[in-house]
Amino acid sequence: MNMSEYVIGIDIGGTKLATVVADKNAKILNKIRRPTESNKGPEFAIQTLFEMIYETIEDVNIKKQDISGIGVSCGGPLDTKTGIVYSPPNLPGWDAYPLKNRLENEFNIQSVIENDANASALAEYRFGGGKGYDIVLYMTMSTGIGGGIVINGEIYHGTNDSAGEVGHQILLPNGPLCGCGKRGCLEALCSGPSIARRAKETVENYPESLILTLVNGDIDSIKSEHVFEAAKQEDEVALKLVDVTAYYMGWGIANLVNILNPDIVLLGTIAIAAGDLLLDPIRKTVSDLAMIRPAEVVRIMPAKLGESLGDMAAISLVI
Amino acid sequence: MNMSEYVIGIDIGGTKLATVVADKNAKILNKIRRPTESNKGPEFAIQTLFEMIYETIEDVNIKKQDISGIGVSCGGPLDTKTGIVYSPPNLPGWDAYPLKNRLENEFNIQSVIENDANASALAEYRFGGGKGYDIVLYMTMSTGIGGGIVINGEIYHGTNDSAGEVGHQILLPNGPLCGCGKRGCLEALCSGPSIARRAKETVENYPESLILTLVNGDIDSIKSEHVFEAAKQEDEVALKLVDVTAYYMGWGIANLVNILNPDIVLLGTIAIAAGDLLLDPIRKTVSDLAMIRPAEVVRIMPAKLGESLGDMAAISLVI
Repeated sequence: MNMSEYVIGIDIGGTKLATVVADKNAKILNKIRRPTESNKGPEFAIQTLFEMIYETIEDVNIKKQDISGIGVSCGGPLDTKTGIVYSPPNLPGWDAYPLKNRLENEFNIQSVIENDANASALAEYRFGGGKGYDIVLYMTMSTGIGGGIVINGEIYHGTNDSAGEVGHQILLPNGPLCGCGKRGCLEALCSGPSIARRAKETVENYPESLILTLVNGDIDSIKSEHVFEAAKQEDEVALKLVDVTAYYMGWGIANLVNILNPDIVLLGTIAIAAGDLLLDPIRKTVSDLAMIRPAEVVRIMPAKLGESLGDMAAISLVI
Repeated sequence: MNMSEYVIGIDIGGTKLATVVADKNAKILNKIRRPTESNKGPEFAIQTLFEMIYETIEDVNIKKQDISGIGVSCGGPLDTKTGIVYSPPNLPGWDAYPLKNRLENEFNIQSVIENDANASALAEYRFGGGKGYDIVLYMTMSTGIGGGIVINGEIYHGTNDSAGEVGHQILLPNGPLCGCGKRGCLEALCSGPSIARRAKETVENYPESLILTLVNGDIDSIKSEHVFEAAKQEDEVALKLVDVTAYYMGWGIANLVNILNPDIVLLGTIAIAAGDLLLDPIRKTVSDLAMIRPAEVVRIMPAKLGESLGDMAAISLVI
């Protein structure tokens, strides 16, 4: 008789905290969301999480001893062995914060802490677009470009949990400044804000672009969505901007394909929304720039889990 | 009583074939070398190898049944599962050549076929500069830039044995043509011939450089060795060329460090000969361009096995 039929997943973001209870088949039974209020620091967040977990357990009417593990998806850097979080950019004050210990001391349940890109990669491997593939590279494509590598079912951590920083491969050392402090990282060229930045610069010279119409002429409110929306309506400026983005993404992915030789590369948020409009020129660039053998096997696809990714990321660590 | 105390190693290069017998402690007991005569194709080479193996076994006075395995280090691409070699650039005519089958049919001894960069990485991990480290990235640095990744004692092959093509990460898409047909690969910037090419172009404008003196004014005979030799003697042009090479190598390695987060990066031939003259500016560039956490753990060192690398590469596959 297996008493521990449930797991808890925790998704810690810079703006939102979420806790879920799931059964061993990865079915989410309950979910609670609260704002992180990240300016209040880690102690506020941890107390909020404790409350949320007690509440979610009560909601589904189970006991603490029915829970076999707590999986936590959190911004890195962090140490998966000690469960200590080291000053993630989106969580001010989480400086060497012993997240795993705090959770285990409170609940006395084994907890697994993982950076969100890695946990997402595992979730895609187990429940999403990576199902059935041995080597899965997952790349977020939203405010930043993170990455997670799953090899034969295991997250590839590297030596100190820093592997998979695929968004910080440098393509243009004299290119735009990246959030990491370097220049011309893939992230500084293809993240949502980077696409928007390039669009703002471009429409200054092409005020007739539909992109500007979509924001009622307010250039400052251009987001990457507007670029893809205008491109779908065949705005030439937007199509060119999509091509530039796809070229840089394709170049970066070609390098990763040569190094990692994955079965599949799954691209998150922006690629899911943009679809083949973005993916097709990315695929073409990868096929142009990568070596023949790794290029001929790799699939480049949108990630599948969408809205549920954060929850699935957290629970995939303990199911 | 263990009857199989010996292994055979085969190193197949474009110009040389070598066979060795080693004991289970990786001690080389005998070695035979012959020219590949690669223009004569794979059948000539395989018959030569058969002869060499029979000869080397006889030389050390052991029997076929004393041999537990044959390890083969060979230019790729190749399929490690089927043991089929697919048209390596340095072995004309080896088109879908069933190397493993031919060996096993002749000797009835289990054979392991591996591409030379991967086998070298494993040898460095087991017997050289990578000993004691969990994640080892080995990069050849000679006529080409190949790579092998060892993770927890296992070669990382990727999906179809194409992982580790670190020399074909593209840094300058409009840069010099690479042997692979693309432009601006790390290999097209930092291999021996690439360093020599840059030196030739540069000394045209700096005829006073010691590099030119070292080749008695014959610009066409400049090799990468001359650049490093002149740099050791503090020739300014040569020092600048070393810096440029180190910058590109450092940039490429920084990207690899961000992606793979290895314990150690071991650099072959050219880096072994040049030493810290080349390695120090590489280390500085990696520290400038890589993320802090993976950069602070990684060691960048010359490979250790030197002349014995090919032999150790082959036998490390079966010891």
